[in-house]
Amino acid sequence: MTPAANTVVAQPSKGEETRALILAAAVEQASAGGFESLTIGTLAGRTGLSKSGLFAHFGSKLELQVAALDEASRQFTETVFLPALKAPRGLKRLQALFENWLSWPLHAKLPGGCPVDLATREYQHRPGSMRETVLERQRHMERELRRMVELAIGTGELRPDTDSAHFVFEFMGIILVFYRAELVHGREQARRHARLALERLIRDYAA
Amino acid sequence: MTPAANTVVAQPSKGEETRALILAAAVEQASAGGFESLTIGTLAGRTGLSKSGLFAHFGSKLELQVAALDEASRQFTETVFLPALKAPRGLKRLQALFENWLSWPLHAKLPGGCPVDLATREYQHRPGSMRETVLERQRHMERELRRMVELAIGTGELRPDTDSAHFVFEFMGIILVFYRAELVHGREQARRHARLALERLIRDYAA
Repeated sequence: MTPAANTVVAQPSKGEETRALILAAAVEQASAGGFESLTIGTLAGRTGLSKSGLFAHFGSKLELQVAALDEASRQFTETVFLPALKAPRGLKRLQALFENWLSWPLHAKLPGGCPVDLATREYQHRPGSMRETVLERQRHMERELRRMVELAIGTGELRPDTDSAHFVFEFMGIILVFYRAELVHGREQARRHARLALERLIRDYAA
Repeated sequence: MTPAANTVVAQPSKGEETRALILAAAVEQASAGGFESLTIGTLAGRTGLSKSGLFAHFGSKLELQVAALDEASRQFTETVFLPALKAPRGLKRLQALFENWLSWPLHAKLPGGCPVDLATREYQHRPGSMRETVLERQRHMERELRRMVELAIGTGELRPDTDSAHFVFEFMGIILVFYRAELVHGREQARRHARLALERLIRDYAA
């Protein structure tokens, strides 16, 4: 008997489906207009659900915002980090991650750009739960990225004295300026610069 | 007779003073809450002026937003670019520019961070006059930065084959990730990484 024959795939309930629908709409809206634009009212308009229907899923604006940020992080992990794990550990995996990252807003169908990036900027100086949640997500993401850099030190591709925190700093710089340059100079030129910058970074730390 | 003896220093009129006061408040607000938060109504509340008084200076929300972006760009030039011109042309000037850039939101008393950076993200995917104005400002700033890089090629400090557009791309990446890292890891650590990254950039292109 294969394990599959013994497995019952859980069907999402109607309530779970509605919740997923609301969150997908919320992430799309936050990507374009920011997380502060997420209110029970605007989401009701966008999803065609009643305000009371939305309240059944999210009791407050803050609850909705935090859930949308969680959903955006989940989409990011699924589109950027998980596919990179198919590449062998080390530089190949780092490079796959980089490529996924450059194109993720496109692949996740978020025409407004990376919502986590936007949230960081949006809550930078607004103390409160959203700011804490955003910072926690950033730290988590940096830890994961740092682990990938350390694997490339482990394979012997990067020098043993590589400062992985600094490598992550520079890696993130390339991603952030790529998003900006894409807008100002177009995708092709931005991509060419981003790849050159990553090559230079890897070359300087190569074993 | 010295030229000064013949010069009458123009005193700003009452109207000019009020306009300057409104714009200073607008830039401060945009730095924290974005340019979309700028309305005649919110600015009236912030400055203590009447809505009709504000309308006398800015006929519409868009006019106010464009004027606030111009004022933010003026403050940026005054705080970041102009003081750097006191340093000798070449790498010293580039380094002075870099240091001014890292600290400019602090020096310009913009606790919400760089408003031009925020505007770029805010209007990234909102077609219209503000988006065009923001992109025009970005291009202008990059041209000025590129000119400074070319001066450092001219002095013989950077290699003659340095791709100045690519240098600008990487320079901007360090600035952008610095603003992010300052928030996540604190100013001192962010500054240390930013300086290391600029050193690495200069070293790789040094003649």
